[in-house]
Amino acid sequence: MDLQRAAANPLIRPQDVRPTRPDMDVIGVFNPAATRFGDETLLLLRVAEAVRDVPDRELAVPMVDCRGDEAVLRIERIRRDTPHLDLSDTRMIRLRDRLLLTSLSHLRLARSRDGVTFTIDETPALYPRDRAEEYGLEDPRITRIDETYFITYTAVSRWGIAVGLASTTDFVTYQRHGLIFGPENKDVVLFPARMGERFFALHRPAVIGLGELQIWLASSPDLYHWGRHTPLLSRRRGYWDALRIGAGDVPVRTDDGWLTLYHGVNAEHGYCLGAALLDVQHPSRLLARSAEPVMIPEAEYECRGFFDHVVFTCGSVLDDAGMLHIYYGAADACTCRASVPVADVLATLERPRRNFSAA
Amino acid sequence: MDLQRAAANPLIRPQDVRPTRPDMDVIGVFNPAATRFGDETLLLLRVAEAVRDVPDRELAVPMVDCRGDEAVLRIERIRRDTPHLDLSDTRMIRLRDRLLLTSLSHLRLARSRDGVTFTIDETPALYPRDRAEEYGLEDPRITRIDETYFITYTAVSRWGIAVGLASTTDFVTYQRHGLIFGPENKDVVLFPARMGERFFALHRPAVIGLGELQIWLASSPDLYHWGRHTPLLSRRRGYWDALRIGAGDVPVRTDDGWLTLYHGVNAEHGYCLGAALLDVQHPSRLLARSAEPVMIPEAEYECRGFFDHVVFTCGSVLDDAGMLHIYYGAADACTCRASVPVADVLATLERPRRNFSAA
Repeated sequence: MDLQRAAANPLIRPQDVRPTRPDMDVIGVFNPAATRFGDETLLLLRVAEAVRDVPDRELAVPMVDCRGDEAVLRIERIRRDTPHLDLSDTRMIRLRDRLLLTSLSHLRLARSRDGVTFTIDETPALYPRDRAEEYGLEDPRITRIDETYFITYTAVSRWGIAVGLASTTDFVTYQRHGLIFGPENKDVVLFPARMGERFFALHRPAVIGLGELQIWLASSPDLYHWGRHTPLLSRRRGYWDALRIGAGDVPVRTDDGWLTLYHGVNAEHGYCLGAALLDVQHPSRLLARSAEPVMIPEAEYECRGFFDHVVFTCGSVLDDAGMLHIYYGAADACTCRASVPVADVLATLERPRRNFSAA
Repeated sequence: MDLQRAAANPLIRPQDVRPTRPDMDVIGVFNPAATRFGDETLLLLRVAEAVRDVPDRELAVPMVDCRGDEAVLRIERIRRDTPHLDLSDTRMIRLRDRLLLTSLSHLRLARSRDGVTFTIDETPALYPRDRAEEYGLEDPRITRIDETYFITYTAVSRWGIAVGLASTTDFVTYQRHGLIFGPENKDVVLFPARMGERFFALHRPAVIGLGELQIWLASSPDLYHWGRHTPLLSRRRGYWDALRIGAGDVPVRTDDGWLTLYHGVNAEHGYCLGAALLDVQHPSRLLARSAEPVMIPEAEYECRGFFDHVVFTCGSVLDDAGMLHIYYGAADACTCRASVPVADVLATLERPRRNFSAA
């Protein structure tokens, strides 16, 4: 497979992004949504900020207080000698009975004519403003349907990890539509077309007891309300997607079906990208998927960052020459691009070994 | 509070229910949905069956194979000396990487003229028939909207614990509408009326990492698709609902607001019942809730059964005299009734100590 990382990678690094406040540092700019808008490529970047100048003896947790009319940044300070503090995951602070995030993410717009050189807005496009977003907005996807661009994003709060929806027609003003999937859910991707009278989405609920981490399909009459949930794509023991799995970019329509990239994790490689092919009329029918990853974290910037060994996509752009430009977060730190002919991806897919719909 | 358990409790015991097959035993008949239909009280019972005559050295797990046109009972046999077998919870069998249920539940109709003497159907009303139901149907609720009775139920399978919807107009034929909430979710209760143009439901998603076990509110234009998820009712440290919480019966409209019973769990009492009062026009507004439980497991049949110390309701019937007849499962084994004046329940509710909507 002829996958080419952009020579200019990483395209966007934390130091390229202006923080929202002088007392905050941008520590990550990654997992961008991507779309074409007019003659530009737009990215909606996840910008993660941490509190600047924290004394060695403490941790500072940024969150947004959404109780009033205006969302206000609040910083909770925790002493490093607090009993039962667990910092083993760089993304989180575990206290005895609470889990907090070490950074607060918002969504920021970047524009490009050539797809690799981006101008980044100075201020957020979407910043937390609802109590279900108090710990941040993460991992957006943009799906164009007719003339409206729908943005799904992970909304994080003390109530859990859920999925919000916003929309825009101009990338200047945005409308919020509340949470379309309750907790615990993330990696929600809307298909860019109606099939029959229905819209479809991929989602990735979490399960505690019975059940498996799995990509599900749901459908909707209006994009705001979802039902008819069905399991679609499971993890596979012994494969690159053995441990975790979740949807990636917005599906692209090909002659063979809907092609979508998804992330898979195994112990050997970390977060990789692979592809699945779904029936054009009935996306609940899985036609084929990657036996081997399309992309493995290998570059230095993918292997060393905030969370190591990660390539994670939330959006791609297909050009007229059949080249799929994959925008992705590298190591939860910076934004990169890799390009691959769609035909190459399709050629490597394999039919599932068993008929999943009869599993 | 003048809560009276029916003198005839338990009203329905496992030995009162005919098993679906001669090689199955009914081990529980509990957590019934309840509604008035014509001049009868109908219960939709959760009937749990286990495999009969299992040799001492093994366990037998009943499940339904839904791959073909017909759902077929399949019995998986597991040796008791299997390594890493965990049977500490009577409801489950934990293997190293699988969780199975010790019984398979379906839904069975029972009818009564007086509300305490029931005639039980010989065959299931709703039996697993979809792959998302292969481990059973549990804990139904019936909500009448216009002339249609909508039934929500917990659908259990290897893919997780999710929520299905069915409907009927005659309790003879039933229509399935698929999963309306994906995993992990249960205790979904539909409100029995539109508010404005919207339907509302209570649901109880599970969370792993960030977040709390919590009753959420969602809304829908059509009952089949759900969105606008918002957290509604949390656990309270130091209260009877400190450990677990979940919706109970279908809300009853009172002059003060929507009154709904919900279950709460703490270490001292087990599964209790309490009440919440929600604004009639805006059910996202919590007006008041029980500081003390309405009902605590105290009777012998509530304290000793399949899973001890449980009173759990999925439905109540309000009579013309203002008496709320609560049908409930006792100790996950049998079906009982307790009755209480609605006015008594309302009188004991307390306004929340803090304004939750601003929490």
